[in-house]
Amino acid sequence: MGPGPINADPRVTRAMSAALVGQYDPWMTDSMNQTMSLYREVFRTANEWTFLVDGTSRAGIEAALVSLVEPGETVLVPVFGRFGLLLKEIGERIGARVVTVEVEWGQVFDAARLEDAIRAEKPAVVAVVQGDTSTTMNQPLEELGAICDRHGALLYVDVTASLGGNRLETDAWGLDAVTAGLQKCLAGPSGSAPITLSEAAVAKIRSRRHVEAGIADGSSAGPGPVIRSNYFDLAQIMDYWGPQRLNHHTEATTMLYGARECARLLVEEGMDAAVARHALHGQAMAAGLRAMGLELFGDQQHRMNNVIAVKIPDGIDGDAVRSGLLSDYGVEIGTSFGPLHGVVWRIGVMGYNARREAVLTTLSVLESALRTAGVPVVSGGGTGAALEFYQEAA
Amino acid sequence: MGPGPINADPRVTRAMSAALVGQYDPWMTDSMNQTMSLYREVFRTANEWTFLVDGTSRAGIEAALVSLVEPGETVLVPVFGRFGLLLKEIGERIGARVVTVEVEWGQVFDAARLEDAIRAEKPAVVAVVQGDTSTTMNQPLEELGAICDRHGALLYVDVTASLGGNRLETDAWGLDAVTAGLQKCLAGPSGSAPITLSEAAVAKIRSRRHVEAGIADGSSAGPGPVIRSNYFDLAQIMDYWGPQRLNHHTEATTMLYGARECARLLVEEGMDAAVARHALHGQAMAAGLRAMGLELFGDQQHRMNNVIAVKIPDGIDGDAVRSGLLSDYGVEIGTSFGPLHGVVWRIGVMGYNARREAVLTTLSVLESALRTAGVPVVSGGGTGAALEFYQEAA
Repeated sequence: MGPGPINADPRVTRAMSAALVGQYDPWMTDSMNQTMSLYREVFRTANEWTFLVDGTSRAGIEAALVSLVEPGETVLVPVFGRFGLLLKEIGERIGARVVTVEVEWGQVFDAARLEDAIRAEKPAVVAVVQGDTSTTMNQPLEELGAICDRHGALLYVDVTASLGGNRLETDAWGLDAVTAGLQKCLAGPSGSAPITLSEAAVAKIRSRRHVEAGIADGSSAGPGPVIRSNYFDLAQIMDYWGPQRLNHHTEATTMLYGARECARLLVEEGMDAAVARHALHGQAMAAGLRAMGLELFGDQQHRMNNVIAVKIPDGIDGDAVRSGLLSDYGVEIGTSFGPLHGVVWRIGVMGYNARREAVLTTLSVLESALRTAGVPVVSGGGTGAALEFYQEAA
Repeated sequence: MGPGPINADPRVTRAMSAALVGQYDPWMTDSMNQTMSLYREVFRTANEWTFLVDGTSRAGIEAALVSLVEPGETVLVPVFGRFGLLLKEIGERIGARVVTVEVEWGQVFDAARLEDAIRAEKPAVVAVVQGDTSTTMNQPLEELGAICDRHGALLYVDVTASLGGNRLETDAWGLDAVTAGLQKCLAGPSGSAPITLSEAAVAKIRSRRHVEAGIADGSSAGPGPVIRSNYFDLAQIMDYWGPQRLNHHTEATTMLYGARECARLLVEEGMDAAVARHALHGQAMAAGLRAMGLELFGDQQHRMNNVIAVKIPDGIDGDAVRSGLLSDYGVEIGTSFGPLHGVVWRIGVMGYNARREAVLTTLSVLESALRTAGVPVVSGGGTGAALEFYQEAA
């Protein structure tokens, strides 16, 4: 019940035990095409170029940035938590000029402030996290695509922690590149990074196209500077996922099976229903935590549905309580990073764990663990409030 | 029965369906430590830093090169097939000065020629493929570590296609960085890249150490230039696999389970026994192919045990025969790249497919497919020769 990775849906791990076939077997290429199609529904997009990067969610981020941003170009990163700092870090490594705007951890940006920064800095790319689990905040994005469009910037969004549990509209919001991971609300294991690219993003990446020696297909390279990574060269990866099927990496078949099953389950449930499920159980958890006397952290109007931060009560060792929860009850919760390390606990309600019994069991054992740690708690307060919430919501 | 990826050992895919735990759960960190220990046996090394890079085998290559090679440094790449060209390509993308030496495809280098090139070019790193599946050649490495040592170069070796099926002695041969993949003789799926690093390699990588903002641990950065990739920053990845457990990527748990099971099966069998198994079944396949009247490609004294290239008989459409084998018999074989595309077929005998029944069935159905294509073949010649070979070898 931490901020992710979480325990996967057993249907996903079962799908991953399927036998493998060769990478150009028609069954395999059909599986790749199915996966592209399913993720179009998950990302709410008609983007042709919707596929997987073979690595963890952070691989998706780096692939998007290194392919989109040419060395020396300006990237604007709104930082409202640790994962904004990661975008900054990656941008600097790949040779971009990175400019940040910051708000206090626990808050989000309003659109006008971001537009001011974009007007002033004229970035080629704006790179932002949707849900930053380090603070549990969910940045509103409804207006940002149009703002970027007005100022000639491409908009990249990392939705690793938010996708499936919070509304995302790639096309309606005008997002140019979006990357995710499986280990949060998608209920799968880390190791595959779904990505979708708008036509504008594809055009820029294709301008940097390059074909490897030894597999040249007679088509020409783009005029732009070669992408500084081979593994994360999205132009090559598109040539592999597309009808050319030009050899690049060897697709990670088992991870593909898992990614496909994650998307299949979400699409079967319906994206709106999945978001509503995360909202319901997240609110039940929040109500229970409050009723136990714990104080929630951050702007609750902009909290992600799928993760809640609570302040660690004064005078107790937060890490000792976390260890006890894991060793005595088999339940994991998280702390956070940087200024919030040891200050908050983060409790996830996501993917396979966005379920009534997971919420109620967590509240119950947390009460027991807090009592053991000497924190005064109302007996049954947390589960009682959550049960009441569920009853009212029904 | 292609040159890889191959169908995985069912014990590996079964291990991958296991439930997940959190990334800092003691059971998880213990699983990571077990994996490190098992791969020390697989790589024949005492190297502390033996772990996984989360991506396909090509991710391991790029991680090794981008972490070891500073921009502007010279890398010498002996090219004897397509995967040497890939090392060159990756080296150029990461800003190295890449120098190649080449032999005709189907041959390997002798040590004296490599020493001459190293003496002339004074590379910081020599980067070489052990087994290049594009030509089926296996480059001898016994003397190369000492040569690099004499000239102050680090030696990186890509053993993706050869590990487990051909002798490899990381420590005895003085290799500084070695990377692999699961989808060949390790009998697993693509998506995880085992790596091992010598003390000298670690020292160079650590000189470029950098700690991310937001997770600073009070320790200091190294004096060298920051590694140009965050995802492939091996200094950070070591801080994650090591006792500090500094957050970096989220380990791909299911792939870790698979990688551990691949190594466990090899160690249980014994590395020498696994190499002998690949040699036995590879020779049986070669004997059968020859007896069918097919001509083997390349220097057979230096052929990899686990893949055999045969010239496509004159006057037939090699790709049509391959398609027929797959659609009529469910057996996949490969062609090759560049100058060998459409000229040879590559038949793999590796991992779970390095088995008597896989060899004999492949020879049998290939005979049928060749006859359908109008190639005159001796009835039962291939299987007869292989059976005879097995009898003599027993």
